[in-house]
Amino acid sequence: MKSIFSKIINREIPSFIVYEDNDYIAFLDAYPLAKGHLLVVPKKEVDKLFDLDKKIYEGLMSLSYEIANSLEKCIPCLRVGMAVIGIEVPHAHIHLIPMNSMDDINFYKPKLTFTYEEFLEISLIIKNQLEKP
Amino acid sequence: MKSIFSKIINREIPSFIVYEDNDYIAFLDAYPLAKGHLLVVPKKEVDKLFDLDKKIYEGLMSLSYEIANSLEKCIPCLRVGMAVIGIEVPHAHIHLIPMNSMDDINFYKPKLTFTYEEFLEISLIIKNQLEKP
Repeated sequence: MKSIFSKIINREIPSFIVYEDNDYIAFLDAYPLAKGHLLVVPKKEVDKLFDLDKKIYEGLMSLSYEIANSLEKCIPCLRVGMAVIGIEVPHAHIHLIPMNSMDDINFYKPKLTFTYEEFLEISLIIKNQLEKP
Repeated sequence: MKSIFSKIINREIPSFIVYEDNDYIAFLDAYPLAKGHLLVVPKKEVDKLFDLDKKIYEGLMSLSYEIANSLEKCIPCLRVGMAVIGIEVPHAHIHLIPMNSMDDINFYKPKLTFTYEEFLEISLIIKNQLEKP
């Protein structure tokens, strides 16, 4: 069965995509811990991060570095945290979370809720930042 | 002031080191969330992960991949999780955590306690695995 991320990649279900190339995609987490909480995902469906082909893993990490630095520029935060937990969805993915406190990376706290318009606005802020030369 | 990790690197305070080269060091977290919980640290003291020089960042991620795959081989777990929170110590570091449940990467749960002998044994198991050709 295709993962929910593969369905996002194939546009079978909608998401707020901020970046895409042949191998990777990044979109807003629908259950965010903080404003600007993103998932960075390799398109090839592999369950565990450390089972990824090393080249794909390295590309994912390089992309996460670029995206994290853009996030810091456009979403007010003290720093960007990173987490790979991977038990929720069996398709390797990296959480990038703009943090203003340690609690912003606490996966046990209630998730934030945003309206469609708020999600769209956040995604456009990030997308615009990523597209800056 | 030197970070606690720089003091570990300089052997001013003891730790259970499992890997070291010119640029990086890995040792057991003294406040582990799970058996085999490691920190992978660039020797150069930079506060935020995404402020690291990109080459150093990429080397850190490549090393984390190798160490995570070794951890999976020698510490019973379902997968290895990764987290970068970075508010605790102002010296960039990656948590690698052998997970048997989602709760193993919950930084709000009480930390595990191990005796000196237990820490030593765990570190030797990992060190031996890392040294295998």
